[in-house]
Amino acid sequence: MAIEELSARAAAGPGDEPETAAARPTTPGGGPGTPAAGPGSGPGTPAAGPGGGPGTPAAGPGGMPAQPDAGPGGEPGPSAARRVEFRAEPACYRHWRLTVAGPAATLAMDVDEHGGLRDGYELKMNSYDLGVDIELYDAVQRLRFEHPQVRTVVLTSAKDKIFSAGANIRMLAAAPHAWKVNFCKFTNETRGAIEDASANSGQAYLAALNGTASGGGYELALACDHIMLVDDRSSVVSLPELPLLGVLPGTGGLTRVVDKRHVRRDLADYFATRAEGVGGTRAVRWRLVDEAVPRPGWDQAVAERAAGLGSASGRPAGARGIALTPLAKQRGDDHIGYRYAAADLDRDAGTATITIAGPEQDPPPGPAGVAEAGAEFWTLAMTRELDDLILDLRTNELELGTWVFKTAGDPGRVLAYDRLLLENSGDWLANEIVHYLKRTLKRLDVTSRSLIALIEPGSCFAGSLLELALAADRSYMLSGTFEDADPDAEPATVTLAGMNLGPLPMGNGLTRLQTRFYGDDAGLAAARAAAGGPLEAAEAERLGLVTFAPDDIDWDDEVRIAVEERASFSPDALTGLEANYRFAGPETMETKIFGRLTAWQNWIFNRPNASGPDGALRRFGTGQRAHFDRKRV
Amino acid sequence: MAIEELSARAAAGPGDEPETAAARPTTPGGGPGTPAAGPGSGPGTPAAGPGGGPGTPAAGPGGMPAQPDAGPGGEPGPSAARRVEFRAEPACYRHWRLTVAGPAATLAMDVDEHGGLRDGYELKMNSYDLGVDIELYDAVQRLRFEHPQVRTVVLTSAKDKIFSAGANIRMLAAAPHAWKVNFCKFTNETRGAIEDASANSGQAYLAALNGTASGGGYELALACDHIMLVDDRSSVVSLPELPLLGVLPGTGGLTRVVDKRHVRRDLADYFATRAEGVGGTRAVRWRLVDEAVPRPGWDQAVAERAAGLGSASGRPAGARGIALTPLAKQRGDDHIGYRYAAADLDRDAGTATITIAGPEQDPPPGPAGVAEAGAEFWTLAMTRELDDLILDLRTNELELGTWVFKTAGDPGRVLAYDRLLLENSGDWLANEIVHYLKRTLKRLDVTSRSLIALIEPGSCFAGSLLELALAADRSYMLSGTFEDADPDAEPATVTLAGMNLGPLPMGNGLTRLQTRFYGDDAGLAAARAAAGGPLEAAEAERLGLVTFAPDDIDWDDEVRIAVEERASFSPDALTGLEANYRFAGPETMETKIFGRLTAWQNWIFNRPNASGPDGALRRFGTGQRAHFDRKRV
Repeated sequence: MAIEELSARAAAGPGDEPETAAARPTTPGGGPGTPAAGPGSGPGTPAAGPGGGPGTPAAGPGGMPAQPDAGPGGEPGPSAARRVEFRAEPACYRHWRLTVAGPAATLAMDVDEHGGLRDGYELKMNSYDLGVDIELYDAVQRLRFEHPQVRTVVLTSAKDKIFSAGANIRMLAAAPHAWKVNFCKFTNETRGAIEDASANSGQAYLAALNGTASGGGYELALACDHIMLVDDRSSVVSLPELPLLGVLPGTGGLTRVVDKRHVRRDLADYFATRAEGVGGTRAVRWRLVDEAVPRPGWDQAVAERAAGLGSASGRPAGARGIALTPLAKQRGDDHIGYRYAAADLDRDAGTATITIAGPEQDPPPGPAGVAEAGAEFWTLAMTRELDDLILDLRTNELELGTWVFKTAGDPGRVLAYDRLLLENSGDWLANEIVHYLKRTLKRLDVTSRSLIALIEPGSCFAGSLLELALAADRSYMLSGTFEDADPDAEPATVTLAGMNLGPLPMGNGLTRLQTRFYGDDAGLAAARAAAGGPLEAAEAERLGLVTFAPDDIDWDDEVRIAVEERASFSPDALTGLEANYRFAGPETMETKIFGRLTAWQNWIFNRPNASGPDGALRRFGTGQRAHFDRKRV
Repeated sequence: MAIEELSARAAAGPGDEPETAAARPTTPGGGPGTPAAGPGSGPGTPAAGPGGGPGTPAAGPGGMPAQPDAGPGGEPGPSAARRVEFRAEPACYRHWRLTVAGPAATLAMDVDEHGGLRDGYELKMNSYDLGVDIELYDAVQRLRFEHPQVRTVVLTSAKDKIFSAGANIRMLAAAPHAWKVNFCKFTNETRGAIEDASANSGQAYLAALNGTASGGGYELALACDHIMLVDDRSSVVSLPELPLLGVLPGTGGLTRVVDKRHVRRDLADYFATRAEGVGGTRAVRWRLVDEAVPRPGWDQAVAERAAGLGSASGRPAGARGIALTPLAKQRGDDHIGYRYAAADLDRDAGTATITIAGPEQDPPPGPAGVAEAGAEFWTLAMTRELDDLILDLRTNELELGTWVFKTAGDPGRVLAYDRLLLENSGDWLANEIVHYLKRTLKRLDVTSRSLIALIEPGSCFAGSLLELALAADRSYMLSGTFEDADPDAEPATVTLAGMNLGPLPMGNGLTRLQTRFYGDDAGLAAARAAAGGPLEAAEAERLGLVTFAPDDIDWDDEVRIAVEERASFSPDALTGLEANYRFAGPETMETKIFGRLTAWQNWIFNRPNASGPDGALRRFGTGQRAHFDRKRV
């Protein structure tokens, strides 16, 4: 039973807080349980792909990206050893086995107990920490780009009798508040990526629960299209967080139970207070799973269901994947550099200035050229870099509270790349690239940092890159030129185009432009009517596409004050403000998870009843009962 | 400017926490600034109405309900002196002047500086505390029931140059977390009641800001249909909470700015970080207010706009109001009693058992009979009692974490009262009563207590009262009878009827029945098909209308375990669980405010950056800057 397993695991002795834990040496390929990419993993085994682009990649030996605590790349800053590294690849997975066989892939969870990202806990019974989820995210990404022939992904466990015990409790109990919140955010995004693959990529996910799935383990299943649970009188699904730990399920479980699977709310209430879970036919009757299958016919039933789920997929049968080659990255204490993305970190000011470079060349002529360019194709390369950069800054640079976005390059080229993708939206790869850009911009929307866009001469805020300014909490666009520095420069422009008008929706289902003009149909129509042409500052301000358009004389002061002010405000209040303002208008399951559920969870995580010395999360597994302040708030 | 006023006010010296502050003697009518109901306040001046019903009213001399610290009613329990009393009436208002002149009413804010609900702060510049809002809520209620001829309510200030400085900061800074949360919840509900009057009662609200409206003062204006701001080069609207206090505006400001008034999100961001606010034509251009009017033509413009706003109202010109007579109530340490509602408080178990009695007689024959019965009409009387009981328990009994609902009476009579109201829904009073019941049930939905319904023989969970069971997190219905106690009793039934099928929607816009069967159209159709007839336990369980239907043998154990378990869980996690489960499906501005905004605000209130000894809320007005932990979470 999940409760016993959880208890056994959590009794494993005290550990340090993840952020202060000693660095664990990376031992690629070590240990008996180390998973490896199975045979038949398709054309795109990344280690076999071409090397990274220019720039010094922070890659360790054998193409494995450096782990945070062992990376030879970048400057050896004081916190370098503790940085979390999000780059991964199948050859180095420690916790998952990815096998591909024709139209079906199997992603088997086989967590290495001793492979925790930090010391102080053991990942027993397929419990997971951030490191396990980083690999999962990588696998979900690669399945879309490297394995276009895959129509069904079977998510299962390589261990006996347990699918997954969920997020590791000792890890959570010892983690500082910010770590918990970042961990939940990333895992939520990965669950969202699974649903996005199913909705937009023709890759259905089948959760084949060959043992108990509790807590985050069940929540992972909830992100799948179909849930099968082995019916063996002991395997159950459960959400034991509330009764055992005094917190909520952290990866969308409550929302998906009622809003996606339509479990009746009173049954859902009972379920979430019952640590021992629900199995068998009752789990089916309550809609917690889709079917309960006895063990004897299990393998065959899973195979049949996988084939059935994939039969409706629009995936091209003969397409060849592209390799997501190792991402070249320089990581220092005050600079992060990729080929197209770069960030300058100013710890005194509390800012990261992020500059995205537009394409250096014109795009290839058609979809075949996109496939040939593969991971080198500008939009894909830039998106991968931005994705990694967001995750790096979010997780490793908590005190840089304001991100300032700039761009540099030729707006016409950005628009040409956009057009190539949109005109070939029926091409599987073009489709993947646009959806990946969409997901990456969504990451920005839920990032707890103030986002400010600076639009200056030489920038290329057009189409896809204009989304950065539209995602920002505020934008400043220089009216005219910098008279002292470069009086003859062309004044900055912004250009609205196809990418701004539909293919890159936010979590609320609206484009950033629609959200910006929510309830102002005339404003939206006027902006749309101006699409296609470059707009200088006065016009962009008049149309409401930028917040302020100061001239050279006022620019420095206005921008400086905005950035300094931001750094002087309460970081928590800013997070709350931004989380509320960024999602005007309709709500979706996604905005509910990131906006509502997350806020409640953050509150609970922060309360002594959970995280205080006598709280349930800290007391769990110690044999002592939690002490609760019983006041209802 | 608001910022200076706020600073001046907050510098008024330290105070105790409200919950430990010394009791303030109630001095009705004392002091020069004490408002009183103006002339012409209509037929329903409550002190002139008939006395309360049976039961011993806890009313002080002169019909004034006892203040928490001076109430002669009820047993003198240890906390009796500190209980908050929600019953109010215009003759005793200390902070508002309500005047009615034909189709227009004026509700002028004139807060008595020395009239705080607790000691330790002064309510300068029309800043408010819970006591001020209790009177506002009472006025909004009475306008609907006692003044049906009123088509426009002008909300303004009786003070010079200030509309309202918002929630009192010293009060907030010193308040315990639960007090802040309860305060915000009640004020949010009152803002919602204003919007409900406008949407469903033909009473438009005009905010006539004859001076600066900052923070909660502006949020009060945001609840109105139309906002006028005096254009005098000094009056502004502002949301200074974030820059000055490190918290969010607490009464829906962020949500209403973007979702209701459609202020562009980047301008809204700038506005909410600018402590000095925005006035004049810029406030109009940004949609923060509807018009800015110079002082010379102010009175005339307000009068014109009030007449215009009311012109479309469907309010009956000749209707006579009914008096909301003083509510009879017995309040002891372990029992709260009204005529139809009662609560037994079990502090050891952490429960309040609430019993609602059905009507004692058949309903009067038609709408004239409803009007004649007035506040004695069962549905209205019961709703007023339930409303007061919810507020009392929520605010005064924080440690009673589970509310157990029972009913007693004749289901047929409940249904007869329901039918009378629904068949006369065009009648203004019937309409008011149904909407009041709707609002009261919504209060239950957002109450941070576990709700369990027990459906036993002799109960009357039918129609309107069945909503109590549908609002509950879980319901238990006895199958058969209690063999030992009363083997010959009729088994309990539940009856779905008109009241369950539309007129009492939740905040998400769906009925509780629709929310229950969200995504399960077949289940909803089957339940609807069974409407009209009494359903015994097995059938009610089969249709999914109750959670469990144990028989006599299992009843005691199942119910006891459910209640005991609930009391053993983390109160915070339960609050989060319930807040997420109760609102499946679509979201509205209302659910966003109570679900998302509130959760973020609670988190922020609970963080050291706001409420710690060095936090912004505690440091405000001390001359010392707040010390922030700059980590973004």
